[in-house]
Amino acid sequence: MSQEFFSEVQGRIPTAAAASSETLAFKAYDPDRLVLGKRMEDWLRISVAYWHSFAWDGRDMFGSGTLGRPWQDPSLEPMAAARAKMAVAFEFIEKLGVPFYCFHDADVAPPGSSFREFRANLDALVDDALGYQERTGARLLWGTANLFSDPRYQAGAATNPDPAVFAYAAAQVANMLAVTKRLDGANYVLWGGREGYDSLLNTDLRREGQQLARFLHLVAEEKHRIGFEGTLLLEPKPMEPTKYQYDHTVAVVHGFLALHGLESEYKINIEANHATLAGHSFHHEIAYAAAHGLLGSIDANRGDPQNGWDTDQFPNSAEELVLPIYELLQSGGLGSGGFNFDAKLRRQSIDPTDLFHAHIGGIDTLARALIAAGKLVEEGTLARLKAERYADWEGPLGREIAARATLASLTGRVEEGELDPKPRSGRQELYENVVNDALWGP
Amino acid sequence: MSQEFFSEVQGRIPTAAAASSETLAFKAYDPDRLVLGKRMEDWLRISVAYWHSFAWDGRDMFGSGTLGRPWQDPSLEPMAAARAKMAVAFEFIEKLGVPFYCFHDADVAPPGSSFREFRANLDALVDDALGYQERTGARLLWGTANLFSDPRYQAGAATNPDPAVFAYAAAQVANMLAVTKRLDGANYVLWGGREGYDSLLNTDLRREGQQLARFLHLVAEEKHRIGFEGTLLLEPKPMEPTKYQYDHTVAVVHGFLALHGLESEYKINIEANHATLAGHSFHHEIAYAAAHGLLGSIDANRGDPQNGWDTDQFPNSAEELVLPIYELLQSGGLGSGGFNFDAKLRRQSIDPTDLFHAHIGGIDTLARALIAAGKLVEEGTLARLKAERYADWEGPLGREIAARATLASLTGRVEEGELDPKPRSGRQELYENVVNDALWGP
Amino acid sequence: MSQEFFSEVQGRIPTAAAASSETLAFKAYDPDRLVLGKRMEDWLRISVAYWHSFAWDGRDMFGSGTLGRPWQDPSLEPMAAARAKMAVAFEFIEKLGVPFYCFHDADVAPPGSSFREFRANLDALVDDALGYQERTGARLLWGTANLFSDPRYQAGAATNPDPAVFAYAAAQVANMLAVTKRLDGANYVLWGGREGYDSLLNTDLRREGQQLARFLHLVAEEKHRIGFEGTLLLEPKPMEPTKYQYDHTVAVVHGFLALHGLESEYKINIEANHATLAGHSFHHEIAYAAAHGLLGSIDANRGDPQNGWDTDQFPNSAEELVLPIYELLQSGGLGSGGFNFDAKLRRQSIDPTDLFHAHIGGIDTLARALIAAGKLVEEGTLARLKAERYADWEGPLGREIAARATLASLTGRVEEGELDPKPRSGRQELYENVVNDALWGP
Amino acid sequence: MSQEFFSEVQGRIPTAAAASSETLAFKAYDPDRLVLGKRMEDWLRISVAYWHSFAWDGRDMFGSGTLGRPWQDPSLEPMAAARAKMAVAFEFIEKLGVPFYCFHDADVAPPGSSFREFRANLDALVDDALGYQERTGARLLWGTANLFSDPRYQAGAATNPDPAVFAYAAAQVANMLAVTKRLDGANYVLWGGREGYDSLLNTDLRREGQQLARFLHLVAEEKHRIGFEGTLLLEPKPMEPTKYQYDHTVAVVHGFLALHGLESEYKINIEANHATLAGHSFHHEIAYAAAHGLLGSIDANRGDPQNGWDTDQFPNSAEELVLPIYELLQSGGLGSGGFNFDAKLRRQSIDPTDLFHAHIGGIDTLARALIAAGKLVEEGTLARLKAERYADWEGPLGREIAARATLASLTGRVEEGELDPKPRSGRQELYENVVNDALWGP
Repeated sequence: MSQEFFSEVQGRIPTAAAASSETLAFKAYDPDRLVLGKRMEDWLRISVAYWHSFAWDGRDMFGSGTLGRPWQDPSLEPMAAARAKMAVAFEFIEKLGVPFYCFHDADVAPPGSSFREFRANLDALVDDALGYQERTGARLLWGTANLFSDPRYQAGAATNPDPAVFAYAAAQVANMLAVTKRLDGANYVLWGGREGYDSLLNTDLRREGQQLARFLHLVAEEKHRIGFEGTLLLEPKPMEPTKYQYDHTVAVVHGFLALHGLESEYKINIEANHATLAGHSFHHEIAYAAAHGLLGSIDANRGDPQNGWDTDQFPNSAEELVLPIYELLQSGGLGSGGFNFDAKLRRQSIDPTDLFHAHIGGIDTLARALIAAGKLVEEGTLARLKAERYADWEGPLGREIAARATLASLTGRVEEGELDPKPRSGRQELYENVVNDALWGP
Repeated sequence: MSQEFFSEVQGRIPTAAAASSETLAFKAYDPDRLVLGKRMEDWLRISVAYWHSFAWDGRDMFGSGTLGRPWQDPSLEPMAAARAKMAVAFEFIEKLGVPFYCFHDADVAPPGSSFREFRANLDALVDDALGYQERTGARLLWGTANLFSDPRYQAGAATNPDPAVFAYAAAQVANMLAVTKRLDGANYVLWGGREGYDSLLNTDLRREGQQLARFLHLVAEEKHRIGFEGTLLLEPKPMEPTKYQYDHTVAVVHGFLALHGLESEYKINIEANHATLAGHSFHHEIAYAAAHGLLGSIDANRGDPQNGWDTDQFPNSAEELVLPIYELLQSGGLGSGGFNFDAKLRRQSIDPTDLFHAHIGGIDTLARALIAAGKLVEEGTLARLKAERYADWEGPLGREIAARATLASLTGRVEEGELDPKPRSGRQELYENVVNDALWGP
Repeated sequence: MSQEFFSEVQGRIPTAAAASSETLAFKAYDPDRLVLGKRMEDWLRISVAYWHSFAWDGRDMFGSGTLGRPWQDPSLEPMAAARAKMAVAFEFIEKLGVPFYCFHDADVAPPGSSFREFRANLDALVDDALGYQERTGARLLWGTANLFSDPRYQAGAATNPDPAVFAYAAAQVANMLAVTKRLDGANYVLWGGREGYDSLLNTDLRREGQQLARFLHLVAEEKHRIGFEGTLLLEPKPMEPTKYQYDHTVAVVHGFLALHGLESEYKINIEANHATLAGHSFHHEIAYAAAHGLLGSIDANRGDPQNGWDTDQFPNSAEELVLPIYELLQSGGLGSGGFNFDAKLRRQSIDPTDLFHAHIGGIDTLARALIAAGKLVEEGTLARLKAERYADWEGPLGREIAARATLASLTGRVEEGELDPKPRSGRQELYENVVNDALWGP
Repeated sequence: MSQEFFSEVQGRIPTAAAASSETLAFKAYDPDRLVLGKRMEDWLRISVAYWHSFAWDGRDMFGSGTLGRPWQDPSLEPMAAARAKMAVAFEFIEKLGVPFYCFHDADVAPPGSSFREFRANLDALVDDALGYQERTGARLLWGTANLFSDPRYQAGAATNPDPAVFAYAAAQVANMLAVTKRLDGANYVLWGGREGYDSLLNTDLRREGQQLARFLHLVAEEKHRIGFEGTLLLEPKPMEPTKYQYDHTVAVVHGFLALHGLESEYKINIEANHATLAGHSFHHEIAYAAAHGLLGSIDANRGDPQNGWDTDQFPNSAEELVLPIYELLQSGGLGSGGFNFDAKLRRQSIDPTDLFHAHIGGIDTLARALIAAGKLVEEGTLARLKAERYADWEGPLGREIAARATLASLTGRVEEGELDPKPRSGRQELYENVVNDALWGP
């Protein structure tokens, strides 16, 4: 394998500060630019995803791999291949100039022939990763265990009808929690890709819910036991590969946490394409999480509005991101979270450099949205209009209702004609213009 | 207005016991037929909905009313029109031969020019209804207040930015709760048709959630204060007329109740078309509710799988209903609830008799599904297969996980190779054949 | 009724040339600004729709009218009300400063009690409209007949099972064609709102297709007979109010025209929200029409990606419009067509001024997209990349295939190993960045 | 590999004539039962699909293969593996007792290292297949070439920007047409899995449409040249793996054929799951094809109404199939076509016998629907009601409109009040009851 895989890119991609008009340069992303007094890099905390960018070969359900990555040559010895992959991954992260990356255990380590061997493989590769982290300055945004690809997980991990599968998943998570701690990861994510059902006919919904809750309790206990300081995150998705996934949406996960006494242990990792698959806007999911203190981290990508599966495309709409980022700014930012590009190249984008085009476009999109959202916060019109709309809830009637009214006491006042409310304009189009003027204005 | 509106139907529609081949006869519904030892009528507790069948004139968003109902003649005096409407409603219920009906306050009573006048109108008409109930034996399955049609509710009722609207809604619900009690209604339903948002831009999600919870607490308190013994029911719907309704799905309502300490006061009224609009099967919503003790009542209808709005058609698929009814039988039935036909004629079905065809078809569909579901319960294969699938959770490892395992203790056993689970067939196609053989078998 | 309805707006809305930061001013729309050498006004040919803005009262399927328009007071004499409505419509068009408007016969004229009376009402009001056109300079972009609201059209107009309804529709269209000619309308549109089916069970697809084709032939003949010089346009929509509308999408209409020998007579009026209801992007529908010479006019609006009905919102995404407008610029513009705002206020936007906010936002969005699309054309990268991609079809093999190859001749060359094509990158992400850089660049 | 793969099934699955209550027996499918005077087997012409049942290993986008088929062991020599696969396929077809099978070239033959080698592999395996056909009596319903899995087809086959890919596809089709002829196949199918686009940005819609038409002309010419007597079939699908596939729906294909003069050469192979992905009912697609003489063959499967991708499940709803089959009976049957199970096991259904459960359930479902559809035809009510609905089109006015009316002539009669149509009931609910009573009646 050649020394550099991305040979068309020499050195680091210029930031927007360089004002280059080349295609291989950021147009809007400037890590040091201040938005509301904080560096862009520190707001966005951009992360590259190992799986899509280095572990996927371009296959889809109707065709085989197209990407032609040399480290995926099946004739390579597995650990040598894994090391070649890691070298390319850090070459990319370093040239792109972003601070974070993420991975599943199985993205990095060959399975071997036993759990023990898998663990040894992973440990050896984590040694390498520590070295790369040191040399490049890249950090781990989050770690996670792949509990969905191996056939043993075909009917779920924690929610499997076979308790031995629960145990196997437990071992994998315990191991990956330790790895994440060792790599100083900022968060640990659980995506329950097969924690759901293909058919209700063979599924005991109540029991599987209890299994899932039990698993989440055990994970939280293990986190405390080993002293991992990062945040535990759940990632909702409504379906695919299952017909129905239990961690359906932010609201459903919120309710589940409440019902099982887990609210203080988990926050949420929200993916744009998962929101839209669930019939929600990404803005809705972010707003719900922000309103309820659940906002953990973000999987930045986009779906195709005309296709009903997870297309995991790179974000390219600043318009769609400005309001989610506005919510995020209003709620103080992502804390230990970040924007991870859980996005993959189109299957036809087979040139190595396409991976740069994809990430540059996605990052510039985030940067544009961040700048506009910052303007909305500074300018304050949106917040003022909304506060005015609800102002009467701070008045005498609003306070009375909140504190001590009863249906009967309110009925009396309506009956007397004392309360006979007239509709007020919701002014939605005006609000929309405020946003667009910030986004498109000078 | 003629003495009888449905003059083509003389007397009661024959039940399936009569084995008539006429179109105006039940083919499967026989109230007295026993399923699992209980009368069909007592399982299904069929109800006619006042709004679609007697208050709607056939209009849609692209055209005016087509149905030509004489009691909707705008030249009639409002209370005379309301009385004519009620006479027709009870003529229909009696001829159809079903035990229940449902209504919103506004379906029955003209608004008058003030709350006080509306209340007086409603009271007078409830007097009439009591007489009809006595004469016909029909009972009220549930009452409800219309908190969505009047312009005052354009931005919601409990969740309105104006607390005076909350108060007005409170008065309407207090009144309708009393009416429901007076009519000996079995349940009281709240559908928050505009408790949601059209735009997140002008919406304070957190505050509106608190308003809604406050309202539900007040309603429960009022129920206890007046001694109403029926069940309080919330009805989920994901959207329409709002972009997003807070009572989105059964799982979301479940979480909301838990988060606000309301679980013991409310059960759920599940509508088939609302389930499918939310991207769920009706079976899913019923199964979730049954698994969590939330199953209250059912709005029987169907949507169109190709149309993205609430088409509210009469159910005509026994296949789609057999598994929901199987869940219901397994969980002991609907209690105080029933199957209410929240379904409307197609706009082109303008002959009076079409209302009978619609209800006969819907009721026979429920009856066919009930008979098949009863067979599935009696035959027991489904339940046995499912129990076998999860049997290991009752074994030593399953019990250990539930009681005292930790990630570390499980990891040890996996590492030793003691636990190395092999996939087992989910047998989905076999389960599906079991259902079809019961449904279609001799 | 007061002299001016929109009393908050004094005089004409300032164009972007005035660079006002007021909310009641255009930020991007400057009629005289040149894009690719042509005035913005002449590219966009903006039109206001009579129906949504002046004939709709704010009702939806779950609630009554909210907008409180004085000319909709039911106590007014119908022709007086119609004249008051027209005065307000032209006040709005003039203050907004756009060149066109559109209407259905029924938007303007009261139905009267017979076809003859309806025609007389319409004629009288057209006299008034001629005066307004003269005074304000506004012109008619297109006229159309409402063949869907009256109950007589419940089962379709041309495709009705009753030929008398076909005849009635024929009379209405003949009349409205003449009116459109009299008002010097630039186009005539047919939207077959109920030309489709609610149920296949009672529908003869083949026969109804023939009825529709017959109708379209008769309309074209009448156009030529009376010497109307405008363009005939069909408007696709996939469904709603029907389950399935025959004029489903641009491609389906294209095929229908070809099958019935109507291609030379009709072009297409494309609505954004109808495209998305059909599962297509608006860009797709425009691109298909442009590629096949069918692009007639545009109904500018947007749907809600999470709601499955025609929400008819004002466009607010320049990102979504830049590529459709790029196609339009590439194909030479809209000819006699324009951008008609087939968009309505949100039901809560009840202040008169909200209508201005809505249109200003929509028009600025179109202007922003037009400016960016103009940059894409001038800059030329997109066109160049695409031309390079297909260049080999202009080479020897491409020309041979187009002219005289057979499967057998090609097989020979493949068998010899002469042709063994290697995949080439589709570079989708690079193309996307080119668009975003034009849209967001300096 | 063991002598028999499906060792749990000894001999042929009993038909419904045997009235067995075992799970491995047909409950409704009896090949010899007469429906409208024709054997069930001859109406349905059931076919097993090689790809899903023998070439797929159970993988999905989130996990590796689960099915554990011995002939997929990567250590086997490719031609030995292909022969083992074929032995199992014919074991299955024979035990199931159905008359047909289908395959793509690539399902059967290993690719080798050149086109020439692939062709030789395929030829050798076709020799084997001829032997199996002779021994078992199974026949080829249709053949097809896989033009979508190999990376060379990533940007389409006929519609590829590279004409060399067009040529390669041409060679593959020419070869597979010859193979289909040699195996006496009844039809030849083209599914353009990647004939569409991922992005409009890099796509020349007009040019690609012309390429596709050119390809279809060449295929038809080759068919005639070699004297293949079977029917050429196009298979619509709206999307997946592409964002948009050109052969979108039956109506779109119909229009395309008309626009390019191909109507006399192609009929259509309709897949249930493709219909629903396009936003149509399967019934709609069948009805459209039947109404226009395009009905060729059927890919029997079902999608999941809650999942937006091709789930390719085995049909299990007789209710959904009764009306499509009713259309088919009304139009005289499928001719050379049949019902091919383009359906795959659930990924969890890993026992060999699950493949029998799946096919038995699917076939019984078709049989139940066929029996009910036969009753509907015999009973005649549906046809009579529909004929009555349109009867006036056979009367004087209907004939006048069809023959010589003009808009002006019709206007005169409307103006005179001679034609003033009143709405008639569409009676949809009554029609629906007629269907259900046939389906569920004694």
